[in-house]
Amino acid sequence: MKRKNGFLGKDILSVDQFSKEDLTFLFRKTTLMKKIVKAGKKSKMLQGKIMTVLFYEPSSRTFGSFISAMQRLGGGIIPLQGMTYSSVAKGETLEDTIRTFECYSDIIVIRHPEVGSAKKAALVSTVPIINAGDGVGEHPTQALLDLFTILSKFKKIDGLKVAFVGDLLNGRTVHSLSKLLAKMGKVEFFFVAPKILRMPQEIKDQLKNRVSIIEAEKLDEVIKKVNVLYITRVQKERFSDLSIYENIKNFYIITKKLMEKARKDLILMHPLPRVGEISTEVDNDSRAVYLTEQMRNGLYVRMALLAATLGKIK
Amino acid sequence: MKRKNGFLGKDILSVDQFSKEDLTFLFRKTTLMKKIVKAGKKSKMLQGKIMTVLFYEPSSRTFGSFISAMQRLGGGIIPLQGMTYSSVAKGETLEDTIRTFECYSDIIVIRHPEVGSAKKAALVSTVPIINAGDGVGEHPTQALLDLFTILSKFKKIDGLKVAFVGDLLNGRTVHSLSKLLAKMGKVEFFFVAPKILRMPQEIKDQLKNRVSIIEAEKLDEVIKKVNVLYITRVQKERFSDLSIYENIKNFYIITKKLMEKARKDLILMHPLPRVGEISTEVDNDSRAVYLTEQMRNGLYVRMALLAATLGKIK
Amino acid sequence: MKRKNGFLGKDILSVDQFSKEDLTFLFRKTTLMKKIVKAGKKSKMLQGKIMTVLFYEPSSRTFGSFISAMQRLGGGIIPLQGMTYSSVAKGETLEDTIRTFECYSDIIVIRHPEVGSAKKAALVSTVPIINAGDGVGEHPTQALLDLFTILSKFKKIDGLKVAFVGDLLNGRTVHSLSKLLAKMGKVEFFFVAPKILRMPQEIKDQLKNRVSIIEAEKLDEVIKKVNVLYITRVQKERFSDLSIYENIKNFYIITKKLMEKARKDLILMHPLPRVGEISTEVDNDSRAVYLTEQMRNGLYVRMALLAATLGKIK
Repeated sequence: MKRKNGFLGKDILSVDQFSKEDLTFLFRKTTLMKKIVKAGKKSKMLQGKIMTVLFYEPSSRTFGSFISAMQRLGGGIIPLQGMTYSSVAKGETLEDTIRTFECYSDIIVIRHPEVGSAKKAALVSTVPIINAGDGVGEHPTQALLDLFTILSKFKKIDGLKVAFVGDLLNGRTVHSLSKLLAKMGKVEFFFVAPKILRMPQEIKDQLKNRVSIIEAEKLDEVIKKVNVLYITRVQKERFSDLSIYENIKNFYIITKKLMEKARKDLILMHPLPRVGEISTEVDNDSRAVYLTEQMRNGLYVRMALLAATLGKIK
Repeated sequence: MKRKNGFLGKDILSVDQFSKEDLTFLFRKTTLMKKIVKAGKKSKMLQGKIMTVLFYEPSSRTFGSFISAMQRLGGGIIPLQGMTYSSVAKGETLEDTIRTFECYSDIIVIRHPEVGSAKKAALVSTVPIINAGDGVGEHPTQALLDLFTILSKFKKIDGLKVAFVGDLLNGRTVHSLSKLLAKMGKVEFFFVAPKILRMPQEIKDQLKNRVSIIEAEKLDEVIKKVNVLYITRVQKERFSDLSIYENIKNFYIITKKLMEKARKDLILMHPLPRVGEISTEVDNDSRAVYLTEQMRNGLYVRMALLAATLGKIK
Repeated sequence: MKRKNGFLGKDILSVDQFSKEDLTFLFRKTTLMKKIVKAGKKSKMLQGKIMTVLFYEPSSRTFGSFISAMQRLGGGIIPLQGMTYSSVAKGETLEDTIRTFECYSDIIVIRHPEVGSAKKAALVSTVPIINAGDGVGEHPTQALLDLFTILSKFKKIDGLKVAFVGDLLNGRTVHSLSKLLAKMGKVEFFFVAPKILRMPQEIKDQLKNRVSIIEAEKLDEVIKKVNVLYITRVQKERFSDLSIYENIKNFYIITKKLMEKARKDLILMHPLPRVGEISTEVDNDSRAVYLTEQMRNGLYVRMALLAATLGKIK
């Protein structure tokens, strides 16, 4: 039986909205997009379609990958990176801006520092809104590309051992991805963080019925066990007592030496940008995917998502 | 008899340059563009053509609609939003910048804070220049989309009652649109403004032979009579005596209650951005077109103008 | 015998990398591109390809011409002008940024204020890097368009008399172009500069075996002899003793009167932007090519270079 396109005309606001069936559908199409790009094929799938990229804070990576995705499929772009200097300065509401660009384009990708801004946009828009990051809220396409990266490598989620490392309190990335993984199968989580930056209780409550969770402060033992090591940045400025920070920070730097303890089938992931959490000497390790597969998958997933949302794949 | 394309290879600098025949031609093509977009058709009309969008001050709305218009017709773009940070900083004249981009593109859309800048550009350019706003000067494509919006609704101009409300002294939008309307037929104007922000005498002199003009300070009675209510912002900073401002400002806020007094066939227009002149509770009133038809028509008119100027429609 | 495409998959970092055969190949293709643009033809040569334009300092001219070049050939763009406000602010290394955009695009054009940055980018990139200016380092595509302009006019280099005028100490443009010219044939150089801004000894050492060099401080006599006059800006801020600057500056302003002394077959070139070195009264002199052929050739050369690098011309 053919799966249905559950994305057609929909806003993409939160990972909570995806069913397992949705994800399976999307990733089948993502694999298709990967083939198109790898073969250097010209696609006209989205020819005649226009995407507004409305960024209220800088993010060249997300901005660039959406813009590439749209054009790889033949579509056009309205690239707006410095929105804070424009309409906002004139006192226009987000709602009025959205209603403007829904008149000029077929889909709007928005990044905004305020939690809930994408949802606010979706409430007034007649064209699909894609949340490309709303402050400490969500960044669902990041979680999708992360999940696709894990699935591409391991084929199944059941029994997979996944470590999240770093600032698990504030990291929207790890919250979203952990929820998606739990949706897909019986994963075993290792949450590795300093005490003050632990995974929030409400996230753990959501997860615990379906998956097993082990919490730790040090990485040394955990790294020997896991299939996936997903590391995020620990920000110095989160600590009021800097001696705690100094004590902890080195636990969470991935070095060549530390990688020697890791499994042969590990994949090492990072949402980027990094500022020291992974030593550059690790970049050439075949298990490091943050600058290769993980990044490329961002392009493929966004191509699939744009095509699905705009109804150009079934 | 077929009408001639009077736009071919021409600069678009001021509404004064358009004959009634020009406008009729352009709006017939605008209707065609509307059909193309509504039908989701792919057009290759401007494939191979490049448009430079040279903005010396931010305006995401005008910027976005020109960029969308060009790509909807298959053309390419050179998007330059932050010109003040670039060549200007290096001391280059506007003339040299224009002569640069005429080498790289087939048409140049310019927005610049100084009155006369678009004309200055046109004097040296071998490719068509479109004025997308030159300070308190003109913004002819705004006037075109406004006129098209009125014509689409009422089919004819003769006998139409049109109110302009707000700052009529400084508003380039209302100056341009009033001149265009007077060109098209026997319209009746209602100019509603505080004494210190009245429509300039020279504009009235230009209009008065062809149309009737009634001036008022309050909106309450006028709103009952008119077919078109075009409101612009009254800026607090224009008043030296703030007590006058405080006394006046509420006369010019369109509320749901005020709309109850208006005609059933009214259309409510605003060039946007708004900052309080129209209460958001009015947005869903079917007579409010500022976030819908008026905005969409900006796209269609600019598509038609680009195609006409570049000689791709006859 | 058909010449080989020596650019396929290569980085374009420095003029030193080009052989005479490479240049001959490239300029044959440049002439082809010129024909495509002049005829208003639609090309799909680079359809499906994406170019990232990664600018860490403003340069609307170079930015615009690369963007136009790519789209003239049907390709797509990731336009990133304000890089300093984005990833850099988050502390990301240039290497990580490059590895990001190699995942999203087929070629990366980079402009960066630091010497060696393009080379640094090339070391980690799997897609071709084009250096669009690395501080006082190189700007090879500028030298290519300059050389093409001279060759188009004079057909051969042997015996050509070429004057470089202005700041020859710091001008990367004149360094690169002089090296390219010497590669192509027996040119006679006239280096006209104030004492403190003379052509560096190491450049002269590289050139002197192949070409003749005459140095001068004044332009009056030189202008009578030369076929090419290439002028660059003398920056006031380079002088510690301003009386020297005041004494010199007027020697290097090209006026209508000065042009009367020049040969009929002269071409007057400038890399732009200019800020007074050439009086605007000279712009209409048929020998002045800085706002016409020289600029247009920037587009054609970059089109040829993109197509060659991406393997779409043989």
